[in-house]
Amino acid sequence: MMRRDRILLAVTLTAIFSADLYFILLPKMRSKGLTSGHSCSCGPNKLTLPPSQGGLATPQLSNWTSAPLLDGTTSEPAYGGSKLVRLFSHPLYNIQTPALGPEERLLQVEQLIDYYRRKVSHWERHMKLYSLAAALANITVTNHEVTYDPDTSWLKFHLGINRYALYSRDDPTVLQLIKDMQSMTVISADYTQDEKALKGACDCTQVVKPSGHHLKLALKMRNLAKAMFKPMRQQRDEETPEDVFYFVDLQRHNAEIAAFHLDRILDFRRVPPVVGRLVNITSEVLKVTQNEDLRAVFFTSPANNTCFFAKCLYVCKTEYAACGSPDLLEGSLSAYLPGLSIAPRISIPSPWIRSYTFTGREEWEVNPFYCDTIKQQYPYNSGNRLLNIIDMSIFDFLIGNMDRHHYEIFTKFGDEGFLLHLDNARGFGKHAKDEMSILSPLSQCCMIKQSTLLRLQLLAQSEFRLSDVMRESLQEDSLRPILTEPHLLALDRRLHKVLRVVHRCVRRLGKDEVITEDFFKSTVTPEAATDGTMQR
Amino acid sequence: MMRRDRILLAVTLTAIFSADLYFILLPKMRSKGLTSGHSCSCGPNKLTLPPSQGGLATPQLSNWTSAPLLDGTTSEPAYGGSKLVRLFSHPLYNIQTPALGPEERLLQVEQLIDYYRRKVSHWERHMKLYSLAAALANITVTNHEVTYDPDTSWLKFHLGINRYALYSRDDPTVLQLIKDMQSMTVISADYTQDEKALKGACDCTQVVKPSGHHLKLALKMRNLAKAMFKPMRQQRDEETPEDVFYFVDLQRHNAEIAAFHLDRILDFRRVPPVVGRLVNITSEVLKVTQNEDLRAVFFTSPANNTCFFAKCLYVCKTEYAACGSPDLLEGSLSAYLPGLSIAPRISIPSPWIRSYTFTGREEWEVNPFYCDTIKQQYPYNSGNRLLNIIDMSIFDFLIGNMDRHHYEIFTKFGDEGFLLHLDNARGFGKHAKDEMSILSPLSQCCMIKQSTLLRLQLLAQSEFRLSDVMRESLQEDSLRPILTEPHLLALDRRLHKVLRVVHRCVRRLGKDEVITEDFFKSTVTPEAATDGTMQR
Repeated sequence: MMRRDRILLAVTLTAIFSADLYFILLPKMRSKGLTSGHSCSCGPNKLTLPPSQGGLATPQLSNWTSAPLLDGTTSEPAYGGSKLVRLFSHPLYNIQTPALGPEERLLQVEQLIDYYRRKVSHWERHMKLYSLAAALANITVTNHEVTYDPDTSWLKFHLGINRYALYSRDDPTVLQLIKDMQSMTVISADYTQDEKALKGACDCTQVVKPSGHHLKLALKMRNLAKAMFKPMRQQRDEETPEDVFYFVDLQRHNAEIAAFHLDRILDFRRVPPVVGRLVNITSEVLKVTQNEDLRAVFFTSPANNTCFFAKCLYVCKTEYAACGSPDLLEGSLSAYLPGLSIAPRISIPSPWIRSYTFTGREEWEVNPFYCDTIKQQYPYNSGNRLLNIIDMSIFDFLIGNMDRHHYEIFTKFGDEGFLLHLDNARGFGKHAKDEMSILSPLSQCCMIKQSTLLRLQLLAQSEFRLSDVMRESLQEDSLRPILTEPHLLALDRRLHKVLRVVHRCVRRLGKDEVITEDFFKSTVTPEAATDGTMQR
Repeated sequence: MMRRDRILLAVTLTAIFSADLYFILLPKMRSKGLTSGHSCSCGPNKLTLPPSQGGLATPQLSNWTSAPLLDGTTSEPAYGGSKLVRLFSHPLYNIQTPALGPEERLLQVEQLIDYYRRKVSHWERHMKLYSLAAALANITVTNHEVTYDPDTSWLKFHLGINRYALYSRDDPTVLQLIKDMQSMTVISADYTQDEKALKGACDCTQVVKPSGHHLKLALKMRNLAKAMFKPMRQQRDEETPEDVFYFVDLQRHNAEIAAFHLDRILDFRRVPPVVGRLVNITSEVLKVTQNEDLRAVFFTSPANNTCFFAKCLYVCKTEYAACGSPDLLEGSLSAYLPGLSIAPRISIPSPWIRSYTFTGREEWEVNPFYCDTIKQQYPYNSGNRLLNIIDMSIFDFLIGNMDRHHYEIFTKFGDEGFLLHLDNARGFGKHAKDEMSILSPLSQCCMIKQSTLLRLQLLAQSEFRLSDVMRESLQEDSLRPILTEPHLLALDRRLHKVLRVVHRCVRRLGKDEVITEDFFKSTVTPEAATDGTMQR
């Protein structure tokens, strides 16, 4: 009798638990904007970062969602079919990093709060004067109130940046920031700083397009969050014509969005959050900009749509205009990083930079021993800089981005800081093309971080298939579908090519030479999470 | 018995005649490159031009083909279904013009032959020197022999230009010229004169594109014929995006081809012959050009195709390059008119010119009585200039060309000369759009030549339906299909709109006020060849 009661109780509890899981918690997780993993603060698979190896860009312990239900084993069927949830709950994605000291955070709270407060009062003072001036000049500018909120998402995003990554996997701030960028009122629009630096000049002596070519704008939200808006220049399902050089290729807003998702799935977290949004270019750009030059590039097209074009190319490039329908124009919004005055960054030419001419060849393209030279040179001769470059080349190969001429790092974290993967809009141009030269840092140096390799191997398994988790992740963006099926499937094909390159290196030089252990306990080896590519 | 023999003979002759017609003559006509009408030098419908009205651009008596079989009545079923043949044999297309005096021809034979002879010997001298220089400079230039042939097609085309039209309907020269442009060896390539006039400067202060934007080239054939090559910039079935202004629209090679056919079908004959051709841009441009600048804009694309781009936009417009596949690039070849030194032309701004700015409005766009002003002004205050402008506006409306800012005339024929319909590559951009403003000269002035109206009415009949005769005519070009079905059908729709505008004018002002008799005998009235639009 007692036993039967117990069974009954167990069955009832299991039923309630399952119902709760399927009907309440899972939908909630989905509705949160990003399907995500769960906490794994215990259990046999818990991994820790040895404090002695603190220089690596590694993930923090995850409690990304509020669903701490399952035990984190990789093949748990109770995840309701979400490969993305399963991926983010895998031990590889739940590695503890040591507690952060003040010097390991990019910004101090007081410093940023102070900066923010000054921004708000400056904005209020400025708007008072500007409204007066605009009224005199007969310009109607929509005047939005700004809000001061020390809990606002962008502030918390900036505060969360640390020596390991731009954000922690378990940080709800990113979800909130994405939501804010997606929906918050735009209170002002302007050219980006680099566009302003051009001062309207069109430097046609450069084969590489001046950035003005791309029409990107800086939008400011009600909470003073800033986002870079890249309007749609070609339809999401359009491909780059085969004859177009990578350096004159259009920037793709959907590539920018997809690159953020991929970076998160690869657990790099070196791309600031990006979200798709339909922007009303009349009410959210033209009517709120205080920049005379920007107002001047707006016009109405023959089809009665509102359009604007690049400043530097004012007179001869109207065919490059971006047009709303009649005012709504989709684009990507990328969260701004903290201003250079409080968080300086430096931009460093990639050692594998391309020639940016029609016929030129760089040394790495002709010298198979190029990496040996690089390995001798500062800052690639010690620490993880070269491994970070290789991470980046894998990322770029997966998205098909040939345009990574420079990379940026925060100066605060010194030479060991992670590389920022900014400006990914030239990815995802040709699904059928796997540009192997992008992988040159990996194939020439034959080095890879163990943590990166393990995750790549995981994503090559059908259980966590990269295209599937990307499809699922991108489904959360309001502009879905972000990538066409061929582009998603190309990710799997390219991932296998990366693993094959690693495999060839291992066969040639041995595992110890190629795979650099960064944080794993010896019990977790590449073989433990492989798709078999390494065993062949 | 006698009677039976006669019947037998008649039946036999009819059978032979029919077989000959169906199996030999008709296929022959088709294979000639252009299906065409037949001679009608006799019969009750023969029309003559009253010598007193010799100032009009009217057609000559036609014996275009060698098939003088039928009597020229409009509904003859023996034409084997070819509407085009039927059209060109209609009396309206077989009107006699008076014999041409020397002053009514653009060029004199001796003058042109002399010019040609000098050209040939200049070429031979020049090539000797150039080959030496090229060898020294290590440039390989293919050296083709030129031929001197006083019977060559371009020479005869130039000699045939008269005060009425660029060519006579019955002139086999045009067929030969088309054939020559289609297949003759190209011996040299260069920028066009207007491109050279830019001297490589990119005048970005102009909203209107410098012509260099369009990459057109002058090709010279073995017989020293010159043709303007406009490479394909967009696929033949692509449409102009709705937000693109007409003045930044790409030029379409297929529009250039189609415009020639339409002009011929409308019996204007004011467009020099144009033909489609696959040009090998390596062997027929790069290897034969003696222009250093032109050689310098060639490059190999990432897809290993040979490409070239505009000189004036050298450094910053590689995305505008035209690329072969890998060397072959289709384009239009338009026959050159005689050089300005022997047959000067002047270019005159159209009174209905557009503003070429985003928001500007010209007077004709806002003043419904604009034509009254124009009618007072020289040269529109007498003769046929205004009627010629209206012909041109109908032509432009049918092809959807908003870019007719200037028109050209041969100075030799004075103010009464016909208008040249040059540069039609911005037609056929949007099949769904009927830009009524192009018709403003007609709708504002309410005047039309009777001969033009009669032909338009004829082409509105199902028997001669404009789209059908155009489809048939364009089928002769090697790049067929030249126009998509929607563009062909748009011609019918637009034609009806033209007739409706005329109809409204007639209702308002009366037939005598609107329809200007030019050459018709009183027995042929608009009603005789109408589609009913005029009767409603």
